[in-house]
Amino acid sequence: LPPSGRSVGIIGAGFSKGQPRDGVERGPDLIRAAGLRDKLQGQGCAVKDYGNLAFEEFANDEPVGRVKNVRSVGSANQRLSEAVQAVKRDGHTSVMLGGDHSLAIGSIHGHSAAVGELSVVWVDAHADINTPLTSPTGNIHGQPLSYVLYELQSKIPVLPNFSWIKPCVSAKDLVYIGLRDVDPSEHHLLKLLGVKVFSMTEVDQLGVSKVMEETCDYLSARVKKPIHLSYDIDAIDPSVTPATGTPVVGGLSYREGVYISEHLSQTGLLSAVDLVEVNPLRGRTEQDVQSTVHTAVDVLLGCFGRRREGNHSPSHRVPEP
Amino acid sequence: LPPSGRSVGIIGAGFSKGQPRDGVERGPDLIRAAGLRDKLQGQGCAVKDYGNLAFEEFANDEPVGRVKNVRSVGSANQRLSEAVQAVKRDGHTSVMLGGDHSLAIGSIHGHSAAVGELSVVWVDAHADINTPLTSPTGNIHGQPLSYVLYELQSKIPVLPNFSWIKPCVSAKDLVYIGLRDVDPSEHHLLKLLGVKVFSMTEVDQLGVSKVMEETCDYLSARVKKPIHLSYDIDAIDPSVTPATGTPVVGGLSYREGVYISEHLSQTGLLSAVDLVEVNPLRGRTEQDVQSTVHTAVDVLLGCFGRRREGNHSPSHRVPEP
Amino acid sequence: LPPSGRSVGIIGAGFSKGQPRDGVERGPDLIRAAGLRDKLQGQGCAVKDYGNLAFEEFANDEPVGRVKNVRSVGSANQRLSEAVQAVKRDGHTSVMLGGDHSLAIGSIHGHSAAVGELSVVWVDAHADINTPLTSPTGNIHGQPLSYVLYELQSKIPVLPNFSWIKPCVSAKDLVYIGLRDVDPSEHHLLKLLGVKVFSMTEVDQLGVSKVMEETCDYLSARVKKPIHLSYDIDAIDPSVTPATGTPVVGGLSYREGVYISEHLSQTGLLSAVDLVEVNPLRGRTEQDVQSTVHTAVDVLLGCFGRRREGNHSPSHRVPEP
Ligand SMILES: [Mn+2]
Ligand SMILES: [Mn+2]
Ligand SMILES: [Mn+2]
Ligand SMILES: [Mn+2]
Ligand SMILES: [Mn+2]
Ligand SMILES: [Mn+2]
Repeated sequence: LPPSGRSVGIIGAGFSKGQPRDGVERGPDLIRAAGLRDKLQGQGCAVKDYGNLAFEEFANDEPVGRVKNVRSVGSANQRLSEAVQAVKRDGHTSVMLGGDHSLAIGSIHGHSAAVGELSVVWVDAHADINTPLTSPTGNIHGQPLSYVLYELQSKIPVLPNFSWIKPCVSAKDLVYIGLRDVDPSEHHLLKLLGVKVFSMTEVDQLGVSKVMEETCDYLSARVKKPIHLSYDIDAIDPSVTPATGTPVVGGLSYREGVYISEHLSQTGLLSAVDLVEVNPLRGRTEQDVQSTVHTAVDVLLGCFGRRREGNHSPSHRVPEP
Repeated sequence: LPPSGRSVGIIGAGFSKGQPRDGVERGPDLIRAAGLRDKLQGQGCAVKDYGNLAFEEFANDEPVGRVKNVRSVGSANQRLSEAVQAVKRDGHTSVMLGGDHSLAIGSIHGHSAAVGELSVVWVDAHADINTPLTSPTGNIHGQPLSYVLYELQSKIPVLPNFSWIKPCVSAKDLVYIGLRDVDPSEHHLLKLLGVKVFSMTEVDQLGVSKVMEETCDYLSARVKKPIHLSYDIDAIDPSVTPATGTPVVGGLSYREGVYISEHLSQTGLLSAVDLVEVNPLRGRTEQDVQSTVHTAVDVLLGCFGRRREGNHSPSHRVPEP
Repeated sequence: LPPSGRSVGIIGAGFSKGQPRDGVERGPDLIRAAGLRDKLQGQGCAVKDYGNLAFEEFANDEPVGRVKNVRSVGSANQRLSEAVQAVKRDGHTSVMLGGDHSLAIGSIHGHSAAVGELSVVWVDAHADINTPLTSPTGNIHGQPLSYVLYELQSKIPVLPNFSWIKPCVSAKDLVYIGLRDVDPSEHHLLKLLGVKVFSMTEVDQLGVSKVMEETCDYLSARVKKPIHLSYDIDAIDPSVTPATGTPVVGGLSYREGVYISEHLSQTGLLSAVDLVEVNPLRGRTEQDVQSTVHTAVDVLLGCFGRRREGNHSPSHRVPEP
């Protein structure tokens, strides 16, 4: 049997009601069709695919304040939380294929319910930390962190289907990488909470290699906790991953995007991964979609031991004539 | 009132006779149409738009030696110099929207006439330091620095409508960033004068972060002078800013281009900015033009305090339920 | 006369049977048509073009084991080896324009036969070190290093038209740059032999500047040997050089690609260069082909003293009015 970090449990979560654009529900099947399972097995991983989650439909899911699709999002995330708990109980690293980033609520909740305190590495163009009261759009994919952080509990109103969510992450255990489109309210919250942020300015200043070194130093300065990597494909530049709902210029290169997952893989602490916001309907060409999907796959392969210098199994032998 | 560095005076200078290609005269209005004013105000700047300069037409502007459109260029720059002086007298940071890079003559002259000795940061694929006698093309947008540097005064012949120009910049106060297409005569001049150059080779070698650190150390090693940033959009790679007259492969990335202005903004010394050589007729698609124009806007926003990690005003409050 | 390093002998080697795709035989003439000779002369090089090699056709070149076109490849490389020896006897730096990368066998063999022990810098997405027995495809362009390394001699079976090849490079004198698609067998061999590898992970981690510094430190730690640079255009990212047979995402930028040759040029040790795998039939547009070919030319110009900060000859004089 492979070490636990190389045993992968895949959950398809084609949920899109955390944002307004059709298409992101197709993410899981596209990423699978690009060969994720075979490629993971080819690099020595054990893989179990838990299939796609079915989500409850709500006939009258009217906005609550400005917040849209509250009941749907609450219910979907409760289901996802249970699925992640099951994957963790089975001993796998959880890989949640979104769907939109509102799913991080359930993914982080379930992960924490199964293993306890977490470090969270949030790779994204956006901070996704608006509260229901600060959100300019009401889309919950811009809010997930506000629900799971202990420090923001007092800022969150009661919402239907959200009562099961208990905050489970400390602001000091969160690191952002790739930010470049942050709302003023979000920026204020990040400063109030003293969250560790490597925006694109810091990526430019330090280089991705130093960013990852500092990320891991920061997270392991206290207790080494299991790492939850929540990877929004829009962290990467739209020239590479255009098929996503809210692209922002000036993102990570393909190489930086993959370096991040390669580096986290080597900590041995990666315990759950979200790969979200792949939306084929937002690509203008099939090439746009393929580039987005294949980059998502390469990020995931990097999470599970793929190295660009190559890999070979210990049993490999060199033939002689 | 905002601090003087955050009070912006915009001058439109749609002048194109420093080079042979139609279209660059549309730069100012395109950059305005992309929302420059609103975006600056949104990040807390006071903005005054001084409108577009009108330039005198010359019926018989025959070449003088190899130099083309001498009378037009001389006259336009005299007008621009006066406009920049007015903006500085009004207490703003001057933002000159070109037009071609010959306009740096008047912009630097006017800036210096208003505030005294300057540091000049020249961001460009080209050195723009040919004299009228070394220029291979006779286009004055490849010559502006030769007219304003004290050290080159003896190399400059008498030209019609140029007598008002007095050299006002010392070679030791000039730093180049982004060079990659330098004529042999220009290279010789740069070496003779000992100008500080960060060509793309040095950007590759040091990284943009160290380049900016060294730029600011170099310029502030003596007296801290007001900084004149003269930014040719062709410094950035043609894959990002293709709509320009003389694109050269191997340029700055979008991120590096913006990092430069972000960093200079933080010195508090930025006193005038030129943004030149945006030419919509040189883009092959509308997407080419939009990418060029939006990059120009983002460079300018970076000059005035925009940070990619986000910004919020001191008066911002976090709502509670 | 220019110093020997600036005297260039060009060999066209439009050979394509080391791999299955038509088109790569057109590489030499395309690179010439992009102005290689004039540009080299313009930067002060003496250039002799030895023309295109003619290669023997084999009517029945059946696979030997899995290995394809063995007789053709063996014969072509023997011819190339002789041509390189002639160029070196004439006192030039040899520039071999491929054609596919199987030609490195003859180029390295001839170079070593003429000057003795070599350092080899192999810039490539691929390791090209499969033996005839490990090759998954049987294409010899994925195997050239296995034939020339002393350490792999025992792994190589007898092949028709290959008996003239004598191993001539030591694994400790080989450095790779740019790897990102390495077969498990190749990875095993690289580890067994302790070859110095800067994969794209190391390029990301260290930056290209440190990679080149470490490359040159490593190679000159013992005796300084003449450098053989074997440059596969697929080392560079397919967004820049798409017209090649086996493109791989996540490659070197144009700037990194040129930095490598600029840096090696300054060692004064560059004694032979291969530029291979330009294949115009693999570009989707004329723009794809032109970008690939011009990048190849710029890499070569960097090998022979071109600097992005500019160049000027010692005899240059600045005119005065
Ligand atoms: Mn996002
Ligand atoms: Mn997100
Ligand atoms: Mn320019
Ligand atoms: Mn310019
Ligand atoms: Mn290759
Ligand atoms: Mn190769």
